[in-house]
Amino acid sequence: MGIIVQKFGGTSVADAQKIHNAANAVIREKEKGNDVVVVVSAMGHTTDYLIKLAKEVTPSPNSREMDMLLSTGEQVSIALLSMAIQSHGYKAISMNGQQVGIITENIHSKARIVDIKTEKLKKYLNEGNIIVVAGFQGVTPEGEITTLGRGGSDTSAVAIAAALKAERCDIYTDVEGVYATDPRIVPNIQKSDIISYEEMLELARVGANVLHPRSVETAKQFNVPLRVRSSFKLDNLGTLIIGVDNMEIYKPVAGVAADSSQIRILLSELPDIPGTAAKLFGALAKNNISVDMIIQSLASNNTNSIAFTVNEEDYPSAIEIINEVKKEFNAGEILTDKDISKVSIVGAGMVDRPGIAADMFRALADNNINIKMISTSEIKISCLVEKENANKAIKALCKEFNLESQEKAVVKGDLPNV
Amino acid sequence: MGIIVQKFGGTSVADAQKIHNAANAVIREKEKGNDVVVVVSAMGHTTDYLIKLAKEVTPSPNSREMDMLLSTGEQVSIALLSMAIQSHGYKAISMNGQQVGIITENIHSKARIVDIKTEKLKKYLNEGNIIVVAGFQGVTPEGEITTLGRGGSDTSAVAIAAALKAERCDIYTDVEGVYATDPRIVPNIQKSDIISYEEMLELARVGANVLHPRSVETAKQFNVPLRVRSSFKLDNLGTLIIGVDNMEIYKPVAGVAADSSQIRILLSELPDIPGTAAKLFGALAKNNISVDMIIQSLASNNTNSIAFTVNEEDYPSAIEIINEVKKEFNAGEILTDKDISKVSIVGAGMVDRPGIAADMFRALADNNINIKMISTSEIKISCLVEKENANKAIKALCKEFNLESQEKAVVKGDLPNV
Repeated sequence: MGIIVQKFGGTSVADAQKIHNAANAVIREKEKGNDVVVVVSAMGHTTDYLIKLAKEVTPSPNSREMDMLLSTGEQVSIALLSMAIQSHGYKAISMNGQQVGIITENIHSKARIVDIKTEKLKKYLNEGNIIVVAGFQGVTPEGEITTLGRGGSDTSAVAIAAALKAERCDIYTDVEGVYATDPRIVPNIQKSDIISYEEMLELARVGANVLHPRSVETAKQFNVPLRVRSSFKLDNLGTLIIGVDNMEIYKPVAGVAADSSQIRILLSELPDIPGTAAKLFGALAKNNISVDMIIQSLASNNTNSIAFTVNEEDYPSAIEIINEVKKEFNAGEILTDKDISKVSIVGAGMVDRPGIAADMFRALADNNINIKMISTSEIKISCLVEKENANKAIKALCKEFNLESQEKAVVKGDLPNV
Repeated sequence: MGIIVQKFGGTSVADAQKIHNAANAVIREKEKGNDVVVVVSAMGHTTDYLIKLAKEVTPSPNSREMDMLLSTGEQVSIALLSMAIQSHGYKAISMNGQQVGIITENIHSKARIVDIKTEKLKKYLNEGNIIVVAGFQGVTPEGEITTLGRGGSDTSAVAIAAALKAERCDIYTDVEGVYATDPRIVPNIQKSDIISYEEMLELARVGANVLHPRSVETAKQFNVPLRVRSSFKLDNLGTLIIGVDNMEIYKPVAGVAADSSQIRILLSELPDIPGTAAKLFGALAKNNISVDMIIQSLASNNTNSIAFTVNEEDYPSAIEIINEVKKEFNAGEILTDKDISKVSIVGAGMVDRPGIAADMFRALADNNINIKMISTSEIKISCLVEKENANKAIKALCKEFNLESQEKAVVKGDLPNV
């Protein structure tokens, strides 16, 4: 038997009852003979509460002090979960990010993990302990407390699983697994039994929020099998996420997602000289602003228009930068369109099957949905549509690609034994 | 200008408004040209809330995990106070016990400080920072989080002041200083402008709860001048606490206090052979049970009765131990009396002035208060009385020793310049 890393999100440890529920899931895995490391988020709305406290003190709290503040949320959870496990007669010990040695960059509020020390973890496991680790937090080599940003606890769990060469990392959450699309939009949607990292990553990038892309990327990089499963239905195996090379068969379209948090920006009449696009996107990149769906078109007066989308969070700083570029090149107007949604289909099987894109465009056209922009990657096709059409588009695409049926995807042979 | 250590209790940082109030007190000291280190307790009822959470999970939480849990309370306060100070335009940085290097014994829930690292503190002070340190917590050399038990934040503050050779340690609280007795019992009681460590220690031991004895002992040991003062009336200098040798004049009786948390235990018919008392009190001491006011009396049948008082917290374990001793020596009955109160007068001036004890006993007698037991130390006389007479005794003694008048104690010359 090997090491299993489990991760419980905030809703799974929101009160004493749920903490005992999580303890049961932990003990269940321990009883199978595994060594268990558990990674926990802050209880329920703790993080929101702490942010509210900070905002009461000052509208613009210092990011170092925010990390100091927010990291307490997970420390509360690990102590309580350890107590719960102990109360059932098992050895447990909690460790915060500093105690484990989850070493990160010296950047506050969204640090990346650079190293995880395993000495203490291995020592405590060898002594028969279940280890409960605070997710979302780390420490710089100088001992400064950092947090990992969105999806941080998932990333902590996967990184610890990778460092310990764990057999599997189970992400316990309040849904039963990964669905081909949001069940609130398409109620009879299929749950995937198995999906590849690559598909999961694309789904996460285009709005499916079961797992943060960073955690999936880390899992892919270190080949850690992930399982997304329900903390309330422990017999349900949820969705297994593994490398595409390990999958025996996959559907052409594994999922459909919409991202309504994008804003389209168009900058017109840029002079058609080399380096303008590089200047614009270089400046955006330097400010950590991700840009998607770039389209450049040459106008009749020998100037270029560049259209692209940015996340609404990044919009204010993006506009500042674009204004500077506009001045520098004496460009035309900046037009923005907030009334858009990016609808995407994702599937590792697309590569082999021509015509998937055509099927998508036809399905949208049949439903009177106008496509404003298109972008494609090896396993994803995205169309920008009007925001009000997003749900209609998702329904049409789920129907088009047979994601609605009650039958599950056919998988040759058994699931890999992980 | 030197280093000033300030300590704010939970009521002084209970909400955003009070945190800004504390920030003002900090900035005021910084503006005088001092280097400032601030020690903070958990906000308001945070600790009670965390204890409640733990009790919901398990009735008997593990003490290591309790320390992990409770230490988050102070970490929240230091982050928020740092943000508040920064919002007024000053450089501030928070540090938890681990980051400072407040090294303690490896005992959970009531560890003692064995060392305080000053390298980082000095570095941050040199960089012009106001440092905000989490009180009540420390770390073992192995990196385990510990807490210091009752009065822990006061002790943290004094120990840091000692380690940094600070000019003074100011304990900000919700009272205006040290009073000769509890103002709720004697409303027109005097506030002391100055009092000695020794008197403060005795007052704290017998029930005055402004400062925990441990913090006063540490201040005495390292000769750190303490000031107890109000966080809400910053112009009020409160009470200065210094060594008795540095005081020019002192009153025969500096304070009166009652401790109603004592229980009297009497063990009768112990054989009059050597070692019985040693056995009894040795066993109690081994279990960390403090014993006070011991009286041993020889009965006619050549057996001894031993009466003593213990704190009500220690009572259950004390009774277990006494039962074992009773069996071993085939002793008589165990009688307990919970209806008692220990009333004490404290004053460094007692040494020089005979007759203080007689004055005390007469004042009590004049008020029909029966004395059940008496114990004395160099600067303290304690009488055990019936609980219902405690307040009457305090009033009588304050009157007897002129602690009620509106005039302040006469101090020759100015207060020491600290």
